[in-house]
Amino acid sequence: MRPTISVFDQSPDRGRGLARDMGVRWALEEVGQSYDVRRVAFGALKEDAHLARNPFGQIPTYEEGGLVLFESGAIVLHIAQGQPGLLPTDPSARARATTWMFAALSTVEPPIVERQMAILVEGNEPWAAQRLAAIEGRIRQRLGQLATRLGDADWLDGQFSAGDLLMVTVLRRLGASPLLQEWPNLAAYVARGEARPAFGRAFAAQRAVFEASTSSM
Amino acid sequence: MRPTISVFDQSPDRGRGLARDMGVRWALEEVGQSYDVRRVAFGALKEDAHLARNPFGQIPTYEEGGLVLFESGAIVLHIAQGQPGLLPTDPSARARATTWMFAALSTVEPPIVERQMAILVEGNEPWAAQRLAAIEGRIRQRLGQLATRLGDADWLDGQFSAGDLLMVTVLRRLGASPLLQEWPNLAAYVARGEARPAFGRAFAAQRAVFEASTSSM
Repeated sequence: MRPTISVFDQSPDRGRGLARDMGVRWALEEVGQSYDVRRVAFGALKEDAHLARNPFGQIPTYEEGGLVLFESGAIVLHIAQGQPGLLPTDPSARARATTWMFAALSTVEPPIVERQMAILVEGNEPWAAQRLAAIEGRIRQRLGQLATRLGDADWLDGQFSAGDLLMVTVLRRLGASPLLQEWPNLAAYVARGEARPAFGRAFAAQRAVFEASTSSM
Repeated sequence: MRPTISVFDQSPDRGRGLARDMGVRWALEEVGQSYDVRRVAFGALKEDAHLARNPFGQIPTYEEGGLVLFESGAIVLHIAQGQPGLLPTDPSARARATTWMFAALSTVEPPIVERQMAILVEGNEPWAAQRLAAIEGRIRQRLGQLATRLGDADWLDGQFSAGDLLMVTVLRRLGASPLLQEWPNLAAYVARGEARPAFGRAFAAQRAVFEASTSSM
């Protein structure tokens, strides 16, 4: 059944593929599942109709028949479990790939999001530089550990999996920061993800939504 | 096969059940799976032997035969998928329960952990109060949204699930803060989780490790 995902009508990242629908779109493209899109205006995120789909008023949500899901990690896992292409069939390898999904969202992402918040919310405070340095120290610790584990492998554990998909998605949130470049193997890992045809299709699709929203203003 | 989990030899929470092994212990108790414990000294977290199990040098890890997992969320999901008791059998209900697992770790937990870090690391800075107020504002937003969705239900979506287990575990990280008490239905929800016999057994087990570590000093 063709699912519908909700996305920002006009993403604050201006179409750079850093909003949380990007990982879900990428997963759908990897498994070859077409989908519909529900555009949600920023002001409508906290309205009842959207809160019924996601009680935290965030995007993306995922609707498939009567099933309604939120949380990009949960949606990617649902897609990966339902169709081949994003998780190994061997149960142990599948559990390890799932571990990387949680590692991306629970261990690597939080300081990266905190950095974005610090720049956005506290950027003009006199102590902004001090805090940013502390946060970047924590990000560097995580990136260094991740780089060590990845080594010269293409992906984190054998074949490309939903774990790599979420990890690349999380690392891309560093955006134009030079942090990632300190670990050439991680920068190459992200580039390898971005070079996948499914990533390219997902990126173009989210970009088109942003461009349509600005051209209609 | 009887698994082994790694835990702090001497948890910095002093046995209050706030370390990340607590959710895994609770899940194992809910499904009736006995387990062994590998105690890891704080200084050994970053040694090769432990990094081979968890590249980020954290606890808990999970070993079951040749399978090695880390990330408490991934471990709880693995336990929940392998044995009855923590996930509904209906596929849609199962996907929704999994959504709550990710919501606990990706949406509700980050500002709660950030609050702990701010108190621990920045507590003596002149701007500590200002930051703490901002973080608590973000926590209040999440708690309010969660309280609205929970309403007067016992659990987040039907029967108790791994989603509730992780959500209660995350909310308990607020510790002695009065924040949770602002939403009586959330405070009752956490108390309901803590009243489960499996929680009690898990709490006692982690407490015993801490007490053994202090009595041997």
